[in-house]
Amino acid sequence: MLKPLGDRVVIELVESEEKTASGIVLPGTAQEKPQEGKVVAVGAGRVLDNGERVAVEVSVGDRIIFSKYSGTEVKHEGAEFLVLRESDIVAIIG
Amino acid sequence: MLKPLGDRVVIELVESEEKTASGIVLPGTAQEKPQEGKVVAVGAGRVLDNGERVAVEVSVGDRIIFSKYSGTEVKHEGAEFLVLRESDIVAIIG
Amino acid sequence: MLKPLGDRVVIELVESEEKTASGIVLPGTAQEKPQEGKVVAVGAGRVLDNGERVAVEVSVGDRIIFSKYSGTEVKHEGAEFLVLRESDIVAIIG
Amino acid sequence: MLKPLGDRVVIELVESEEKTASGIVLPGTAQEKPQEGKVVAVGAGRVLDNGERVAVEVSVGDRIIFSKYSGTEVKHEGAEFLVLRESDIVAIIG
Amino acid sequence: MLKPLGDRVVIELVESEEKTASGIVLPGTAQEKPQEGKVVAVGAGRVLDNGERVAVEVSVGDRIIFSKYSGTEVKHEGAEFLVLRESDIVAIIG
Amino acid sequence: MLKPLGDRVVIELVESEEKTASGIVLPGTAQEKPQEGKVVAVGAGRVLDNGERVAVEVSVGDRIIFSKYSGTEVKHEGAEFLVLRESDIVAIIG
Amino acid sequence: MLKPLGDRVVIELVESEEKTASGIVLPGTAQEKPQEGKVVAVGAGRVLDNGERVAVEVSVGDRIIFSKYSGTEVKHEGAEFLVLRESDIVAIIG
Repeated sequence: MLKPLGDRVVIELVESEEKTASGIVLPGTAQEKPQEGKVVAVGAGRVLDNGERVAVEVSVGDRIIFSKYSGTEVKHEGAEFLVLRESDIVAIIG
Repeated sequence: MLKPLGDRVVIELVESEEKTASGIVLPGTAQEKPQEGKVVAVGAGRVLDNGERVAVEVSVGDRIIFSKYSGTEVKHEGAEFLVLRESDIVAIIG
Repeated sequence: MLKPLGDRVVIELVESEEKTASGIVLPGTAQEKPQEGKVVAVGAGRVLDNGERVAVEVSVGDRIIFSKYSGTEVKHEGAEFLVLRESDIVAIIG
Repeated sequence: MLKPLGDRVVIELVESEEKTASGIVLPGTAQEKPQEGKVVAVGAGRVLDNGERVAVEVSVGDRIIFSKYSGTEVKHEGAEFLVLRESDIVAIIG
Repeated sequence: MLKPLGDRVVIELVESEEKTASGIVLPGTAQEKPQEGKVVAVGAGRVLDNGERVAVEVSVGDRIIFSKYSGTEVKHEGAEFLVLRESDIVAIIG
Repeated sequence: MLKPLGDRVVIELVESEEKTASGIVLPGTAQEKPQEGKVVAVGAGRVLDNGERVAVEVSVGDRIIFSKYSGTEVKHEGAEFLVLRESDIVAIIG
Repeated sequence: MLKPLGDRVVIELVESEEKTASGIVLPGTAQEKPQEGKVVAVGAGRVLDNGERVAVEVSVGDRIIFSKYSGTEVKHEGAEFLVLRESDIVAIIG
């Protein structure tokens, strides 16, 4: 298990299937770099200048969209993860 | 649905029709890059150093003008959105 | 109408007529890039780290001088405006 | 009249006459870029993160020395001024 | 012994063995630059603007993952260590 | 007289004589750029975010060492001075 | 004597002898740039935004390791010193 520090979040990448206008499903490799992930671990949050910790706005299990080219790629027990700062996450898919 | 984080705002782009001096309507493609959008989701706001959250100054439904080349383009359920930081929004069209 | 966000200010450009030493009036095009404007809308002000908002130091109707090349050009209802940050405004013409 | 914003200061440039070792007076054009000015208007001061305003350390009438290449050149009613940030002023000539 | 300052952490590098899909063990040299370490010493933590010290989130003995190319390499008593800032550590391996 | 602003300090450069190992005195021109000065005027100090002013750590008459290439050169009443920020001063020669 | 300002620390460089695997002692010149020093003077510490001073974490006599290429080289009374910011010191050798 990976326990991220501060406002970091560990995610698994999600290959988003996408249909063309004519209904053909494009596999992940024929698309742009994926920007979707599923949260698998969440840090304790960043510490403000007044000493208070701010809880991260995402929770384990959330599907999120993140900024391209952000984060640190990590291999752990044969699987690949991406560790993001909270500020790299733009939205939760609700 | 997309739920933006922090001071982020999700918008749909708005193609602004524009008439030339002689009254001819120019479609979007003959114009500059659009800078108008309609707000579809608003984050909880950024956290100040005193722990307080500052509500974002725009609301769902607002038509806004944003800085060129800002934001993260996101495809979701077949539609295209732009996720902006509040600081990328320059004005609300009232 | 445009409602600027934060410490932003919407201005109309002012073409400043200028006379040469010999009294000949130079129209705007024969001069340097204008740096004068008239304030048409003012934001609520920026938020300090203590949560307080600081009122912008200019008011609607003020004629101001701003730093060259600053601001975002915006077309709205056929007219052109410039949206500035308060920090781009150097002085009010009193 | 020009009313500078925040911690800005409006100055008139002062051509400093300078004598060579042999006593010859060099006019301004034969010298380096002037760095001296006389204060003609002073802003209300910058706002700290606690909401307090800090009065600018110079007053109208002070002769000051400023950092080369700083400030915004402004023409107003036929005269030329320089608008400086307080931080561009290095010393008052007492 | 090394006593790191502020939010710094001293680690020993850990050569992570990794098996290929076919089960062959690749020694460290055939892999990417290692990003794993074991914490051997922890600083007192960084000081906030309110004077409070924030304890570092890792403890001696923790196995951690850090950002590539971060830290200062230090040789001490024949052994090699890496001194990291807490912000260079992305996760604890739990 | 020059009255420096904020945390600025006015110094006169000091040509440090230096002897070679064999006892020959090298005049200033045969050496590196001098980094020594004598304090002739001290500003009121910088203002913290809580509105408090922090007194500068040097006093008039102190001999100090400063970082190379820092400060603003100023000519005043025929003499040359250097105006430094307090942060450019590394040590007092006691 | 040198009295460093703020969070600065004056050190003497320490030439670290190092043995190769076969036991041969390499003199300093055959090695990398030294990164070890002995603290000879310590400043009063940096001032926080709340006006409080934070004592430097090292004391006179401590042997320390610092980041390569940091600090200001200073010659004083025939000896050479290095003036570091506290943040350039990575660890105390205990």
